[in-house]
Amino acid sequence: MIWDSSLHEECGVFGVFNCHNAADLVYYGLHSLQHRGQEACGIVSTDQTDFYVEKGLGLVTEVFNETKIAKLKGLNAIGHVRYSTAGGGGLENVQPMYFRHHTGNFALAHNGNIVNSSELKRYLEDTGSIFQSTSDTEILAHLIKKEKHDSNRILAISTALNMLEGAFSFLIMTNNKIYACRDKYGLRPLSIATLNGGYVISSETCAFEVVGATYLRDVEPGEIVIIDNDGLHSYFFSQYQRHKMCAMEYIYFARPDSDIEGQNVHTFRKESGKLLYRQQPVEADIVVGVPDSSLSAAIGFAEESGIPYEMGLIKNKYIGRTFIQPSQALRERGVKMKLSAVTSIIKGKRVVLIDDSIVRGTTSKRIVKMLKEAGALAVYVYIASPPITSPCFYGVDISTYEELISAHKSVEEVREIIGADSLVFLDEKKLYEASKRCELCTACFTGKYPTALYQSYKEANKDGKF
Amino acid sequence: MIWDSSLHEECGVFGVFNCHNAADLVYYGLHSLQHRGQEACGIVSTDQTDFYVEKGLGLVTEVFNETKIAKLKGLNAIGHVRYSTAGGGGLENVQPMYFRHHTGNFALAHNGNIVNSSELKRYLEDTGSIFQSTSDTEILAHLIKKEKHDSNRILAISTALNMLEGAFSFLIMTNNKIYACRDKYGLRPLSIATLNGGYVISSETCAFEVVGATYLRDVEPGEIVIIDNDGLHSYFFSQYQRHKMCAMEYIYFARPDSDIEGQNVHTFRKESGKLLYRQQPVEADIVVGVPDSSLSAAIGFAEESGIPYEMGLIKNKYIGRTFIQPSQALRERGVKMKLSAVTSIIKGKRVVLIDDSIVRGTTSKRIVKMLKEAGALAVYVYIASPPITSPCFYGVDISTYEELISAHKSVEEVREIIGADSLVFLDEKKLYEASKRCELCTACFTGKYPTALYQSYKEANKDGKF
Amino acid sequence: MIWDSSLHEECGVFGVFNCHNAADLVYYGLHSLQHRGQEACGIVSTDQTDFYVEKGLGLVTEVFNETKIAKLKGLNAIGHVRYSTAGGGGLENVQPMYFRHHTGNFALAHNGNIVNSSELKRYLEDTGSIFQSTSDTEILAHLIKKEKHDSNRILAISTALNMLEGAFSFLIMTNNKIYACRDKYGLRPLSIATLNGGYVISSETCAFEVVGATYLRDVEPGEIVIIDNDGLHSYFFSQYQRHKMCAMEYIYFARPDSDIEGQNVHTFRKESGKLLYRQQPVEADIVVGVPDSSLSAAIGFAEESGIPYEMGLIKNKYIGRTFIQPSQALRERGVKMKLSAVTSIIKGKRVVLIDDSIVRGTTSKRIVKMLKEAGALAVYVYIASPPITSPCFYGVDISTYEELISAHKSVEEVREIIGADSLVFLDEKKLYEASKRCELCTACFTGKYPTALYQSYKEANKDGKF
Amino acid sequence: MIWDSSLHEECGVFGVFNCHNAADLVYYGLHSLQHRGQEACGIVSTDQTDFYVEKGLGLVTEVFNETKIAKLKGLNAIGHVRYSTAGGGGLENVQPMYFRHHTGNFALAHNGNIVNSSELKRYLEDTGSIFQSTSDTEILAHLIKKEKHDSNRILAISTALNMLEGAFSFLIMTNNKIYACRDKYGLRPLSIATLNGGYVISSETCAFEVVGATYLRDVEPGEIVIIDNDGLHSYFFSQYQRHKMCAMEYIYFARPDSDIEGQNVHTFRKESGKLLYRQQPVEADIVVGVPDSSLSAAIGFAEESGIPYEMGLIKNKYIGRTFIQPSQALRERGVKMKLSAVTSIIKGKRVVLIDDSIVRGTTSKRIVKMLKEAGALAVYVYIASPPITSPCFYGVDISTYEELISAHKSVEEVREIIGADSLVFLDEKKLYEASKRCELCTACFTGKYPTALYQSYKEANKDGKF
Repeated sequence: MIWDSSLHEECGVFGVFNCHNAADLVYYGLHSLQHRGQEACGIVSTDQTDFYVEKGLGLVTEVFNETKIAKLKGLNAIGHVRYSTAGGGGLENVQPMYFRHHTGNFALAHNGNIVNSSELKRYLEDTGSIFQSTSDTEILAHLIKKEKHDSNRILAISTALNMLEGAFSFLIMTNNKIYACRDKYGLRPLSIATLNGGYVISSETCAFEVVGATYLRDVEPGEIVIIDNDGLHSYFFSQYQRHKMCAMEYIYFARPDSDIEGQNVHTFRKESGKLLYRQQPVEADIVVGVPDSSLSAAIGFAEESGIPYEMGLIKNKYIGRTFIQPSQALRERGVKMKLSAVTSIIKGKRVVLIDDSIVRGTTSKRIVKMLKEAGALAVYVYIASPPITSPCFYGVDISTYEELISAHKSVEEVREIIGADSLVFLDEKKLYEASKRCELCTACFTGKYPTALYQSYKEANKDGKF
Repeated sequence: MIWDSSLHEECGVFGVFNCHNAADLVYYGLHSLQHRGQEACGIVSTDQTDFYVEKGLGLVTEVFNETKIAKLKGLNAIGHVRYSTAGGGGLENVQPMYFRHHTGNFALAHNGNIVNSSELKRYLEDTGSIFQSTSDTEILAHLIKKEKHDSNRILAISTALNMLEGAFSFLIMTNNKIYACRDKYGLRPLSIATLNGGYVISSETCAFEVVGATYLRDVEPGEIVIIDNDGLHSYFFSQYQRHKMCAMEYIYFARPDSDIEGQNVHTFRKESGKLLYRQQPVEADIVVGVPDSSLSAAIGFAEESGIPYEMGLIKNKYIGRTFIQPSQALRERGVKMKLSAVTSIIKGKRVVLIDDSIVRGTTSKRIVKMLKEAGALAVYVYIASPPITSPCFYGVDISTYEELISAHKSVEEVREIIGADSLVFLDEKKLYEASKRCELCTACFTGKYPTALYQSYKEANKDGKF
Repeated sequence: MIWDSSLHEECGVFGVFNCHNAADLVYYGLHSLQHRGQEACGIVSTDQTDFYVEKGLGLVTEVFNETKIAKLKGLNAIGHVRYSTAGGGGLENVQPMYFRHHTGNFALAHNGNIVNSSELKRYLEDTGSIFQSTSDTEILAHLIKKEKHDSNRILAISTALNMLEGAFSFLIMTNNKIYACRDKYGLRPLSIATLNGGYVISSETCAFEVVGATYLRDVEPGEIVIIDNDGLHSYFFSQYQRHKMCAMEYIYFARPDSDIEGQNVHTFRKESGKLLYRQQPVEADIVVGVPDSSLSAAIGFAEESGIPYEMGLIKNKYIGRTFIQPSQALRERGVKMKLSAVTSIIKGKRVVLIDDSIVRGTTSKRIVKMLKEAGALAVYVYIASPPITSPCFYGVDISTYEELISAHKSVEEVREIIGADSLVFLDEKKLYEASKRCELCTACFTGKYPTALYQSYKEANKDGKF
Repeated sequence: MIWDSSLHEECGVFGVFNCHNAADLVYYGLHSLQHRGQEACGIVSTDQTDFYVEKGLGLVTEVFNETKIAKLKGLNAIGHVRYSTAGGGGLENVQPMYFRHHTGNFALAHNGNIVNSSELKRYLEDTGSIFQSTSDTEILAHLIKKEKHDSNRILAISTALNMLEGAFSFLIMTNNKIYACRDKYGLRPLSIATLNGGYVISSETCAFEVVGATYLRDVEPGEIVIIDNDGLHSYFFSQYQRHKMCAMEYIYFARPDSDIEGQNVHTFRKESGKLLYRQQPVEADIVVGVPDSSLSAAIGFAEESGIPYEMGLIKNKYIGRTFIQPSQALRERGVKMKLSAVTSIIKGKRVVLIDDSIVRGTTSKRIVKMLKEAGALAVYVYIASPPITSPCFYGVDISTYEELISAHKSVEEVREIIGADSLVFLDEKKLYEASKRCELCTACFTGKYPTALYQSYKEANKDGKF
């Protein structure tokens, strides 16, 4: 997928404990997680006495410079990249969030989405809390402080986490510890590595490479890993543990060089391309993938089918975030600034087009049209995932049934709308085969949500959301 | 190739004649040519009475906004993207250059490099000229104005162009005409397309797609195409005409979706990958290309050999131009911000690594090391071009013998330096086969320069350049 | 006074109720209050349903542009300018602060300083609150929400305000009301004006002029003025009411065109200049005031004495906040970028130098030296306020005894240090005469604080503060 | 005067020869000359081998930072501040201009305006020159290079300067010399000072103070002062020498702490205020000056008349250059952001309002209205200069008769238009008395131009200019 109107991951987190140049390392780590969020980022560090905070709107390379990094003193630091400005954008929602309290200041960074946030917010406000952001993260901070376990901090955190329902990977940094927590369903990834006697925690393993850290293990579902000067300590806040990893991490979000719970992402995608061909073979002249995320699947398809892979679509590398608003007559052309079809490759060919998923269908329609205008004799569309039929409540930016073309249309109807000569979606079961797992969260394909969904979502439904 | 220390193209030009929203169109066109120069850009437009100039340092999307585009009135406009700040950087060298003269103001944009610029500058200064920039472009303006052919402008331009030796594709815009000129050797590309009764001129055909223009023909070597309200007029300033297109345009510079003198660039590269395998077959487990420019060749190699293509190297999409200066201990890691090896793919494999060219050898060395650290059993390096042994004087940023590893080392020595298990360069003759041409400028591989090189280069040699 | 090392006011507030273009008006109002704080500013508006927040570091004209103002919808808005980044700078402390609560969101803007903030913070944290900023303002929000008077908001606010000890002028904006509150001592100004059926509230009356509002009355000490669609309502949260207006507002902070509790500031200052001469007449050739704040006093002195006023010191109008760091040899000259002595006026003259106050004495020393180097035969220094001998806890940036030259030195010692030929401070009693008031807070001159000072200040004392 | 619609000086120049930190010193010097031009600035330095150029749009403190200053190596440097973007704005007109030529590169900085620039440009273009800027400065460069006196540079410069008609103070910097040149009429100031064995040249003496230099002498009309390692050398390029210093330098442009040809500017202005009162005494309650430029005259008037000076108009110190565009209803109020009347001072008073000059009359009209709205019983306007009746061709931004109210209206008519109760202009003869000179350029008051005006101005007249 390529267009702005598509899926968005909400966040990535990265932490460093007991390493020289901790903020430098977080800077590099966040840069490797930049694909998980480009709207805002921040780093909080501590020298075990004071905390230092630097945050801003924009890419890691835009928000930080040497002066700011130099201010982030200490051997411990956590950072965050964020996509969404959902819930009222603005700087007050940029993470990590930093809280002051006489029993000890702390910082929080969060990847995921809490399903019962309205209920918890109401409960907290009724007992005297007020909120400055619309972020779920602030809720956890209040919950922790509401607990009368100041002498036993792990108990306070554990009790608080048990009140949260939904998807989360949290980093909590106090002056001398980092707590790495993962929801009991295991919906979002969180991994730990070692580096020169210290530790590194990251949403994805691809960020370990850049800082030279060695992968150690994942944080388990329902686990709090406490990192302090004595090393790692494990504490399970829940005995209910599943491995419902978000399938979209494999299909679209994660970087191809990341391993998620042991399976490499590129390998998953290439395998899904092979399975696609086996699911429904086709005769064609060339295989074309939608850059960048569908490249692996397209290569797998080409390899399995023997149909040559060609670079029939080119993405402009210099896409900035501030295009000029094209005059009305040029709007259609403006679209081509991002992606163009290569006429001399496409012309007179039967094209297999590989994409990772279809959300609204508008993108696929444009690309098929682009290929046909470039002279394609036929366009056979293969999607390396099942039809998306349900919203996600765990941190992916699909919030309504309405926007999902497959929630309302059959495969044949979608095919007709996008103008393809054929349309094939990967079977849901094949996701397990490609990922070599027996559990996954496939709620967006099946509507089977692993968690409760609470009142707020019923209300959302009344407003026509679902 | 990926590192900053590699080859740089100097420029791209784009012009529009008699189209509504001319400056908008040039904006889109330049954005499609951004790979030819990222340091600076500019647009000059005219409404047949006045000229409007907007220029700046940075990417097209950074320099221009709606306000600036709106100031660029008129139906005619030319633009320029520039890599080099060579010759004294600074805004005075940013193109297009605009000149005022009572016989008619005009703007110039230039892609290429003039070999006898010092000789011409001295001649012009001796007859009263002074120069504000260090750019070759200013020389042409002075030469045109020195000619006493004001009543016959095409004669003045023609006489001036005949004094220039070297590589050039010039756009000259007066209040009611655009002159598109190409050197008699045909070293740099320049193509023309039609759009709603108007005309579009571009360094590469990939830029036609975004503005919806239809390719018409190339400007011929030694030709001036005059575009005015009566349409196109052809004038040959030289009867000596060759087709010595720069081979590096095919190998590295041009975008894969461009056609250069009739041959698609991606197709050339994929073919060169096939030829590489045929030239020296190998047994291996996976084929890995260095992103982004070597992808086409790698896919060709994989297709021809049957060895599976894998995404073993990942490029970070969010590379900005302003990284923080990493602390000394982290400098090596800083390098990994741009490119990383995927351990789970590489580990235990015999890897064929495809790159488009080797300049200094330092990049190749780093990548081979990276792959071996990721667990590659063997790394067989295949380069989709011959060894670069000579500097380029026609607009590519290779100015000294010293920096060229193949100018001093044998293939075997280079193999040892970069740590590869084998090293194969494409035969020079294969370039003709892949491009389906019988003429190319391969001076950087052979030292056979198509033009004279003049005194200044002899002097350069004394300083140890060659 | 002119140097950066001098006194700083902490804040200014401005609010608009039921006026079209409310945010525009606040923008103009804050611009008129810019002298009260240049580090940061913000505006929160409400259309009675939603709230809109825009804040940033910098001057009003730097932080806001048309796009941002356009986002601030609604007929009601409050704004804030801030000097200090004390207490941890950073964006989290920029006001107005905005709080979300299911019983109604609200925004707060504060001018002043709370004396018992540590005590209140501890109390609030012990009952479950956590803090994100170090600002006093957040304390009031928590106090209000702790109160179980949600059905009776004025009671909740009143109870909360009664827990605060210190100086404050608060604006509290809910979706349909603005509460304008002033501490019971009346330490900081807050005035109300009418505008086209709506209301305007401002720290200083000078801001009414720019928006075309008509002064109505001051908020009284201990009063909450509630502004809603039915007009103004008065509520007194305290029966203890004094008029201890900060003398420094007259002497230095306020703009000369403001009236503070009925007395024009320029008139006060001019009068203080006259009183200075009457207090100790002198024979001299010219009177020179330190620009800009001492001009009024100097003119009063000249008028009373008959000694001609001359522009012997010139302030550079183009002082930016980002001077280059001068090389060591030039540091002394760098100082002159702000202020220079006019040799042709000063030379051979006996100079009366008028300044508004002396804090550290370093500034006065430099100016006297500058005048003598310019040829002054004698420099008689007259200060239009008494010696500052005690820190301020009510929002002025004098926090330690140490920095105050008059806390440790006699007038004669100060005279010698600054190199003056004579030195006269205005008698404290004359402040009452100039202001035509019988009450003022003159704690910084007398050490007689109108409020309790609490534990935290005793602790501060241990660290050597006082 | 205060409004943007008023008079603008075009430029200021500053040079340093043989001083350590030359570029630092020029930075400070230009900052002191900032009032002569706020639109753009630049510095060129030389280490006697290479030249270094840094220029930009904006204030000195905005364009330069430590990095840029550090790049400006060498002991010699010249700089320029510029008001006007007249003639096509843009960076190509920012000075100093730098020219490359094999006989020696050089930089030029210019204050003034050349009257015969079109004639010279045509002559130069006819002999082969082309122009990139619209600046007069480029003309001088071409003229110098046209001269065949390369072996005798002073002869080339001298011949070139003799071709220029108009007002100029030029600095010409070669690799080892600075030439300081002043037109034969002496229309624009240029002074020299010494500093630690080196030399400093400045448009105004106020800039010497900040760098610690000691005033030596003025460059004489028609003189070229050559500064090289042997010291100062004087060369007169013209035997016709007058002292027609621009009267507006005294009245409005120059900083009050500058001395122009021996007379201090503040002293001139104060004297003009005294002369105004003597010219036509008045009975009134207070004297108010329009800040900032009319303060000196107002104080003189108050002193002479015994009427007390009051600060009845306040200028906002924080005027930025980027106000938001106020909504239509607020435009009138937007004006008040710059200046406000102090009601409590003005109310019920008969006000003498002192301003330095009247150009269009719109400003005076607004101020009189503002004072009356604030309750002034009467407003007696005194202008410290004669009526401006003619355009200026020597570098002041008054280019048409049309815009000048006094070119078309009698004093009584102007009085009525601006709504004053009386209006007095200073007699032209009094300017000589205040300046203690017998020569001045008063062309804008009298129409008696000291130079020829050439064809181009006749043409301008046809277009209705005069």
